[in-house]
Amino acid sequence: MKYQFANNIPESDEDPVGNILKVAGDPKVISFAGGLPAPELFPVEDLKKVTNEVYDESGREALQYSIAAGYPKLREQIAKRMNRSGIKCDIDNIMITTGSQQSIDLTAKLFVNPGDTVIVEQPTYLCALDVFRSYGAHMVGVPMDDDGMKMDALEQAVKDNPNTKFIYTVPSFQNPTGRTMTADRRQKMIEIADKYNIMILEDDPYGAIRFAGKDVAPVKTFEHDERVIYMSTFSKILAPGLRIGWIVAEKALVKKFTLMKQTVDVHSDNLTQHIIAKYMAEYNIDDHIAKIRDVYRRREGLMMDAIKKYFPKDARYSHPEGGLFIWVEVPGVDTPSLFNTCIDHDVAFVPGEPFYADKVIPGTFRLNYSNMQDDKIVTGIERLGNAIKEAIDKKVEV
Amino acid sequence: MKYQFANNIPESDEDPVGNILKVAGDPKVISFAGGLPAPELFPVEDLKKVTNEVYDESGREALQYSIAAGYPKLREQIAKRMNRSGIKCDIDNIMITTGSQQSIDLTAKLFVNPGDTVIVEQPTYLCALDVFRSYGAHMVGVPMDDDGMKMDALEQAVKDNPNTKFIYTVPSFQNPTGRTMTADRRQKMIEIADKYNIMILEDDPYGAIRFAGKDVAPVKTFEHDERVIYMSTFSKILAPGLRIGWIVAEKALVKKFTLMKQTVDVHSDNLTQHIIAKYMAEYNIDDHIAKIRDVYRRREGLMMDAIKKYFPKDARYSHPEGGLFIWVEVPGVDTPSLFNTCIDHDVAFVPGEPFYADKVIPGTFRLNYSNMQDDKIVTGIERLGNAIKEAIDKKVEV
Repeated sequence: MKYQFANNIPESDEDPVGNILKVAGDPKVISFAGGLPAPELFPVEDLKKVTNEVYDESGREALQYSIAAGYPKLREQIAKRMNRSGIKCDIDNIMITTGSQQSIDLTAKLFVNPGDTVIVEQPTYLCALDVFRSYGAHMVGVPMDDDGMKMDALEQAVKDNPNTKFIYTVPSFQNPTGRTMTADRRQKMIEIADKYNIMILEDDPYGAIRFAGKDVAPVKTFEHDERVIYMSTFSKILAPGLRIGWIVAEKALVKKFTLMKQTVDVHSDNLTQHIIAKYMAEYNIDDHIAKIRDVYRRREGLMMDAIKKYFPKDARYSHPEGGLFIWVEVPGVDTPSLFNTCIDHDVAFVPGEPFYADKVIPGTFRLNYSNMQDDKIVTGIERLGNAIKEAIDKKVEV
Repeated sequence: MKYQFANNIPESDEDPVGNILKVAGDPKVISFAGGLPAPELFPVEDLKKVTNEVYDESGREALQYSIAAGYPKLREQIAKRMNRSGIKCDIDNIMITTGSQQSIDLTAKLFVNPGDTVIVEQPTYLCALDVFRSYGAHMVGVPMDDDGMKMDALEQAVKDNPNTKFIYTVPSFQNPTGRTMTADRRQKMIEIADKYNIMILEDDPYGAIRFAGKDVAPVKTFEHDERVIYMSTFSKILAPGLRIGWIVAEKALVKKFTLMKQTVDVHSDNLTQHIIAKYMAEYNIDDHIAKIRDVYRRREGLMMDAIKKYFPKDARYSHPEGGLFIWVEVPGVDTPSLFNTCIDHDVAFVPGEPFYADKVIPGTFRLNYSNMQDDKIVTGIERLGNAIKEAIDKKVEV
């Protein structure tokens, strides 16, 4: 039949990034397009062991309905971890979600009326943009440099948009740029949020995956009045297939989140919550994270060295100290046609366009190193360097 | 800080049913208030076995990100099951959700603009009402009798509300009434939906749990042009803690659902999807369902016999042939004060009020028999009968 969708539902059924991943999925293509953690690092045997214990010790409880806020023992483990990171909280500040994607969605649902402004980094996590769009938000991108969002531009954006509901930031090893906001800017962001009385949504899936440089405390540790909604996930530090993330916020707000959570999926998978709680009780997850850091450090290093060797001088790129991504800008090049040239060279990336809320910087793209074997990183970057040179030459010909 | 919530977010943080369940949770109270399946029937050992196989055979794949539509092998198993129930479909008609609650939420998100009408049974599943409310829907309740929604009243409601987006129905062993819509009425509902060009949302979590009478085919089997969105779940036939449900709809619409699903939680727990797919491949889930039916048949029978023995003549009640619930009406009694009298008698139910979209029928309440030991059913109903008599006497005194 002919459907009449709600106003905020996009008309197009196209999934541009999905299409790119399909093209990049050809086995002869070396694809830096995905954003997946390395599956060979998943602690399969450890998870299997604790899963058996969950079935034996509390199988019926784990398979039964539970509470919307999430399994208390898991929230206890998370609260401990959060306190170690400098975020003071107890379990009533924490709600479990079906991954960070749901944390973003619930926040938008709680706060955004159509036409409300959401301020984001430029570029930013594209699936957050999809969420904000689905609630009819007006999105305003704030330019970044290597130190994260520019604070003068942020203040201007807030002034220009008095109906701003919150600032959405991925402060550490951002997707897509790999950049990290400095401590000074985090403090400044809080000052601006205080001054104009707006909230901050701090999305921190990658913060624990630091393989170089010094830790920077979460934005939430700088706040004075609990205006930061902090969110993180087990997707990058354990396994994304489990779809378990969490929100840390003021207790009264967590109560509201919990009522909303109940309407969207009652609660997140209870068996999985029991498995992760057990895993965290029996293993030191930081030992596991250390292994992830080591592998990603090596892969990022290989990619960076190859970029320096094979990319033309015109190309600029970020220098991540953690996370999964490097961001590249080749000024003046048209990204979609560069993508096609790359496919001819059997290599792929995600073009920059969908990561921008408004103004697009052309010639930008994202590279992922977390999920690629060492030798292919070098070969792939060599191919990519050749494709970029070819694209630049073509441009000059025109 | 002081939050400015979106327009459709309820102001109150109260969770009236949550509060009732808390009061009813006192160990000396025999509570028929919950809506839980019997945990002693969960196939813990079988699930443990297939979970170990999933870890051994495809652990990394099950722990990695997957596709929004859901694990193809699980969708294949569901498609087979749906075809056996008379719903013709293949895997592209099916999307996996984080339980039926999410199926309802995604449907509302896709279709409902604030002010749009959603027609529901009166009474109906209260957490569906919470969803529709969260999108600003105007809800219209249609009266029922023992054969389900009254079709003349439905047609009138559709005529009166030209902005109706869909009819929400729980046609089999409805929550809260336990009633089942007859085949004639299902056909008539399709005729009305065709005539006025509106959609039907068929929520069928209980249909497989029939312990008496004859099967009635899903509403969707009567349709002419795929206007029915059918949804079901593993919550009542396997285990609700796993939070896995599904939608069956026209392929083009499933594509749209899938894009929305991606924005709300990327995909449902992949490990759990693998576990259920493996379970369905290795075991006949209908053998398991037969065990559930046997136990629920016995418990419903015990409750019905006790009702006949201990309830006053004034009390009316439904006669479910499946599912988890009996609906009671004691004309003229005030339910909240009856609830308090019951708590004094150490017995509990869920009062009817929150199940009504608009006009409330006083003196109604829901009883659950699926999750109660046999002896307690009889004792509890005896207490309840005494409490009702006391409430009626009080009423007469006033």
